[in-house]
Amino acid sequence: MHLGAMREDKTVEDFRYRQIEQHLLQQIASGTLGPGTRLPSLRHVSARSRVAVSTVLQAYAELERKGVIESRPRSGFFVRRDAQELPPPPRTPRPVLRPHTINRSQLIAAVLESVGDRELLPLGINCPAEELLPHRELARVAARMAREDSRSQVGYLPVEGSLSLRRQLSLRAAQAGLDVRPEEIIITCGAMEALHVAVRSLVRPGDNVLIQAPSYFCFQQLLENQGVRSIEIPSHPRHGVDPSDVERALSRFDIRACIFTPNFNNPDGSLTPDKAKKEVVSLLAQRQIPLIEDDVAGDLYFGPSRPTVFKMFDTQGLVILCSSFSKTLCPGYRIGWIMPGRFRAQAYSVKATTNVCTATPTQEAVAMFLQEGRYERHLRALRRRLLEQTQAMQLHISRTFPGGTRVSRPEGGGVLWVELPRGVDSVELMYQAREQGISIAPGTIFSTQDRFANCIRLNTGNPWNEKLARGVEGLGSLVHGMLPAGS
Amino acid sequence: MHLGAMREDKTVEDFRYRQIEQHLLQQIASGTLGPGTRLPSLRHVSARSRVAVSTVLQAYAELERKGVIESRPRSGFFVRRDAQELPPPPRTPRPVLRPHTINRSQLIAAVLESVGDRELLPLGINCPAEELLPHRELARVAARMAREDSRSQVGYLPVEGSLSLRRQLSLRAAQAGLDVRPEEIIITCGAMEALHVAVRSLVRPGDNVLIQAPSYFCFQQLLENQGVRSIEIPSHPRHGVDPSDVERALSRFDIRACIFTPNFNNPDGSLTPDKAKKEVVSLLAQRQIPLIEDDVAGDLYFGPSRPTVFKMFDTQGLVILCSSFSKTLCPGYRIGWIMPGRFRAQAYSVKATTNVCTATPTQEAVAMFLQEGRYERHLRALRRRLLEQTQAMQLHISRTFPGGTRVSRPEGGGVLWVELPRGVDSVELMYQAREQGISIAPGTIFSTQDRFANCIRLNTGNPWNEKLARGVEGLGSLVHGMLPAGS
Repeated sequence: MHLGAMREDKTVEDFRYRQIEQHLLQQIASGTLGPGTRLPSLRHVSARSRVAVSTVLQAYAELERKGVIESRPRSGFFVRRDAQELPPPPRTPRPVLRPHTINRSQLIAAVLESVGDRELLPLGINCPAEELLPHRELARVAARMAREDSRSQVGYLPVEGSLSLRRQLSLRAAQAGLDVRPEEIIITCGAMEALHVAVRSLVRPGDNVLIQAPSYFCFQQLLENQGVRSIEIPSHPRHGVDPSDVERALSRFDIRACIFTPNFNNPDGSLTPDKAKKEVVSLLAQRQIPLIEDDVAGDLYFGPSRPTVFKMFDTQGLVILCSSFSKTLCPGYRIGWIMPGRFRAQAYSVKATTNVCTATPTQEAVAMFLQEGRYERHLRALRRRLLEQTQAMQLHISRTFPGGTRVSRPEGGGVLWVELPRGVDSVELMYQAREQGISIAPGTIFSTQDRFANCIRLNTGNPWNEKLARGVEGLGSLVHGMLPAGS
Repeated sequence: MHLGAMREDKTVEDFRYRQIEQHLLQQIASGTLGPGTRLPSLRHVSARSRVAVSTVLQAYAELERKGVIESRPRSGFFVRRDAQELPPPPRTPRPVLRPHTINRSQLIAAVLESVGDRELLPLGINCPAEELLPHRELARVAARMAREDSRSQVGYLPVEGSLSLRRQLSLRAAQAGLDVRPEEIIITCGAMEALHVAVRSLVRPGDNVLIQAPSYFCFQQLLENQGVRSIEIPSHPRHGVDPSDVERALSRFDIRACIFTPNFNNPDGSLTPDKAKKEVVSLLAQRQIPLIEDDVAGDLYFGPSRPTVFKMFDTQGLVILCSSFSKTLCPGYRIGWIMPGRFRAQAYSVKATTNVCTATPTQEAVAMFLQEGRYERHLRALRRRLLEQTQAMQLHISRTFPGGTRVSRPEGGGVLWVELPRGVDSVELMYQAREQGISIAPGTIFSTQDRFANCIRLNTGNPWNEKLARGVEGLGSLVHGMLPAGS
């Protein structure tokens, strides 16, 4: 065996032990392996996974080093009791099912300003840290493209965007089982613009739009700007959108469209199961109601495989899929896309009158990055990091926040949703945390109703380190100080 | 005198002769020096301009080489009689002054598709040819920035955009006599997005908005998408917006906002004089009506100095200035800006919910390009080229289009507005031209009313060459073939 083969073998083993580690982390994070649970024996895992016992041992050792599991003499490995203190998942408050004219722009503007402040510890943003992104590699690709064809880089692309990029997106969709041709895709300036194009393509002022609560605050701002009324159904912390809630809303209101985030909903991290996805699509198809799907976090799964999208169950072109590279590769490049289904003509016209087309150099750089297989490789590393960071933050919250705190168990994505003891005001906490150099996103902004005033969203996109640990601890102290008297 | 100083002197002389040539071209193009007019003597110009007689001779020789003037033995230089055949400027049809619900999206979509087709001779677009843009220089700057700080390039900028770029824009505004601080600017994805942000910040469905006719067709599409009614006042081919037309409209309708292009209006090239600008701003201020100003072509003046903007006469923050680098430097970078005056909060919110912020790498590259003084240098060259190309196309139209054709006399910008003999249908011409490999923009799309059915807009952004000459000639033949029987 020569050296090259050995190195390869080493890499394969390395890959396998990380796979095992990741799988276990995910099971622990999701609660499948609860605190105190005995882990399967090394021999058992070795046989089942067809890897060497030493490889399994390596995975267990790594988990022990991270403080997630512990070995007990002659008994084996156990999930640490710390995890027993892992707070329960947040509850599902039922929003009042009524149309609501949205108006909390000022608060959201304050949050945006705070979140954009680079001096603060960025727990308020929803975005991986730049050091987790392959910025040098991407810059090299971008510089090469600029050098090789500077002329076409200053020119307009067509309204629908770069054909190379749309081809890459079509390929990725195909790998996920979705049949969308390049000409059925329009490139946008990020997923926010994709949603904006979708909403403006479908909705007129005064229309009712169905959304999850909690959901990404920019949905509400977007709807408010369009003079649209939002109707909220609960987002269940684990399984997201429940078809029965959708059905109930449809039977009571004239709904023009829905906006749902089935995969790792921002902020609660919930994942709508396949069965529910299929049912929702079918319910809406019966009534010919379009569904705007936000899938920005879909590639950030912690489990073994990518979750499906609503669009996979769409036979009538009613599902409009919106996504981007902003949570995975290059937020600052502002590259997203919309797969507008049967609403392509409207989406094309809205995109053209919004900003004609998306920038050329950034699109072409990302297209080449994908074409060269660099994206998929990067995603594998990023998912692993996000899972580790999520786990670390969950544990640290459980150790430093007061009793009565609940925390989400996301199976993907880059945020944690934390329910603080009743009576703690998250907006007040935001201002106090800011004083201490920390940004957070208060729960209030994630709904038009005041059901989440004691919740906060925390970014898990930062590498876990001492500074971060101290920040989370500092937040915990602030929450302790804000507990209502007598609690 | 050492070699460096000589080279500098040579450059100065070169610059002076080009200045003289440009000045004369502009006077000829605007009709100040009509066909057959004798040019001032070499000695006279030499004395007045304080340059060597040989320098003036060089300018005259260049104009002669271009076929614009001719020398007659012992008489001096004269504007060529060809120019006598230069068609008169287009007329000013008075649109019916009534609210109009806009709906010609399909035609505009067809035009956009045609205009975006790179196989066609691009006379339909409004954009300088890529070879006139400093794409290599800009790519080098962009690549350098990427190398030096790849990390911050993948990160978000704040909603309002790059501070370096806003500082550069503030400086340029100051040079033009406009006092706008960096924090009063928001960077957008091109001027189209600036207009979009402005309209969405101000206008609700059902509102009336005052526009010029003809005006940029995307204004209408944008207003249509917003469910807004447009009311048209005439755009006079030479002096643009007439305050008395504005006053008349204001007295008859409840106007929510105006959108005007005072400097080299697209498509008719008209320039609203300072006095009129001041009066319009004052009329609107009395009624507290916001004015959205499109200044994308303002830097492309052929005369000695930059025209003013409405915003210079604005004391109340009611003028919202929109512009971009798309007609001057890098259309594909999608960098524009809005100076929203008193509507900053609204504009900020609309920008945030449209696409969060504009891309980082493109903004920072343009900021550096400006900071290094490269933009101003490039603009000087570009203005000169555009003037030459405009002149060449005007002459060639006069030689090849049928009698009864009229053509605009723009004092800046990159388009010509051509009024064809009555009865010629510009949409039909567009389809016929397309068959012959030429794109044009039919007049029909520049108004909600059918006043410009026999007009076309031609791009003067391409270097004049044989192919272009044949293209214009081909268009002329098509027009000949479309003349109504008996004309």
